[in-house]
Amino acid sequence: MRDFTKDHSALALNTASLGHNLEGKGAGWSPERVIDACAARGYGGIVFWRREIGARAVAIGDHARGAGVPVVGLCRAPFLVGPMAPVAVWDDFQAAIDMAAALQAQVLTIVVGGVAAGTKGVGDSLKIVADHVAKAAPYAAARGVKLALEPLNPVYAGNRSCLTTTRDALDICDAVAAPNLGVAIDVYHVWWDTDLPRQLARAGGRIFGYHLCDWLADTHDVLLDRGMMGDGVADLRAIRAGVEGAGYCGPCEVEIFSAEDWWRRDPAEVLDVILGRFRGVC
Amino acid sequence: MRDFTKDHSALALNTASLGHNLEGKGAGWSPERVIDACAARGYGGIVFWRREIGARAVAIGDHARGAGVPVVGLCRAPFLVGPMAPVAVWDDFQAAIDMAAALQAQVLTIVVGGVAAGTKGVGDSLKIVADHVAKAAPYAAARGVKLALEPLNPVYAGNRSCLTTTRDALDICDAVAAPNLGVAIDVYHVWWDTDLPRQLARAGGRIFGYHLCDWLADTHDVLLDRGMMGDGVADLRAIRAGVEGAGYCGPCEVEIFSAEDWWRRDPAEVLDVILGRFRGVC
Repeated sequence: MRDFTKDHSALALNTASLGHNLEGKGAGWSPERVIDACAARGYGGIVFWRREIGARAVAIGDHARGAGVPVVGLCRAPFLVGPMAPVAVWDDFQAAIDMAAALQAQVLTIVVGGVAAGTKGVGDSLKIVADHVAKAAPYAAARGVKLALEPLNPVYAGNRSCLTTTRDALDICDAVAAPNLGVAIDVYHVWWDTDLPRQLARAGGRIFGYHLCDWLADTHDVLLDRGMMGDGVADLRAIRAGVEGAGYCGPCEVEIFSAEDWWRRDPAEVLDVILGRFRGVC
Repeated sequence: MRDFTKDHSALALNTASLGHNLEGKGAGWSPERVIDACAARGYGGIVFWRREIGARAVAIGDHARGAGVPVVGLCRAPFLVGPMAPVAVWDDFQAAIDMAAALQAQVLTIVVGGVAAGTKGVGDSLKIVADHVAKAAPYAAARGVKLALEPLNPVYAGNRSCLTTTRDALDICDAVAAPNLGVAIDVYHVWWDTDLPRQLARAGGRIFGYHLCDWLADTHDVLLDRGMMGDGVADLRAIRAGVEGAGYCGPCEVEIFSAEDWWRRDPAEVLDVILGRFRGVC
């Protein structure tokens, strides 16, 4: 395994950890200021959200590479199915891929959406997801973009992600069989799954992302109360061992939605704490 | 499959569906009044919570059998591990078994509790659970009580249930290998699991309980916002087919925690709606 105490260049910031402050919330830092703050601390990459990029993808991507903190991922494709999916899924999916390409971000994360109207259970919805992904994969491949299916904690299965396990994500990967289709492993969503070690081994080179935070034992909001690494009950070292054991050597992306705690702090402090925890407990 | 439109004697009320109103909340009905209301509607069984029974287990059990609505289950054993477990787990576990025996309730439900202090992930905690259950099983068997391990939705894994899947529950059953140890399948907790059909077949005769409600697609509280059958996205018919396909022919226990909706209604109305939905959509 990599020794993060001596080399933390694998550390990547997902800007959600700063409360999407680029939108005018929080400290209101610009994308460039966030990039520079990451560069000053030796972060190795950054992941933005589409709404933070707008029409400036090429410029932001250039700035990031120039600072030595390349954009390693983009959040995210539209919901593909379920109550929160847009009407024009395909148009929006293409736009997300185009933005990733303009940023020269290698990975576009996909949160698939919930249960399709008029259906029960997740089976029909997962088929719809597979169809959308099969259509998008060659479009993305032609633009140098990988697609990462992210299973979400089952608490979101109704509205945000009928895809809840690494097993189901890999089943879609197997069915679609596109070389640029893989999975993103987020400890928040999969930490409870005793089948995870087996699925990570099955995934092999199809792990396109590894997301870090922690699950607080007494979490009071399943959307916006994620914990800093080390403050919760997820076995971060075991999950990392499984991810790296499968061959993953890419970015470790810290993504902490925390409306009541970390989002209220100075972004500089948050970046410092993330770095310290990354070196100490991940 | 049983035809519930013609015979709803499999229907059982879990008193949680009336907001535990026996505690002085809601309509404040006594256990006997709830029993009689169920009897009047042709319910086939009832499941109480320990705090509703107090020291009157024998009398309430007698009343229920006399009314033709036997107590078919008891909620529940103490948390066995994690931050909400009592100090004296074994004493409380025995007390729960004793109460089930006094009620002549065949099944005691076990919600296992969360992650043990000082540990990460669910592995160590599941071993503690297995040890407790292995100790309790013969004590329960001697009193005619079955123990049903209930996997909970992974959203509870930190504090309420490190046991999150039917797969993990059956792994414990396999390890303990006690004839009176099985699982309870609650649609709220397992509806998202694509591995469920396979696990139900594996369970066979070890399914000791089947719990009904529904998962609301836009649920806003994972503890107290359960839906009435038919109002959500769980595939109730498919899950029932799996449960009955495994050989289960016991009670179908309706358990709806709904602080903002069903608990605010007249218990008589709730009992009527449950019956109608049971016959129509389950």
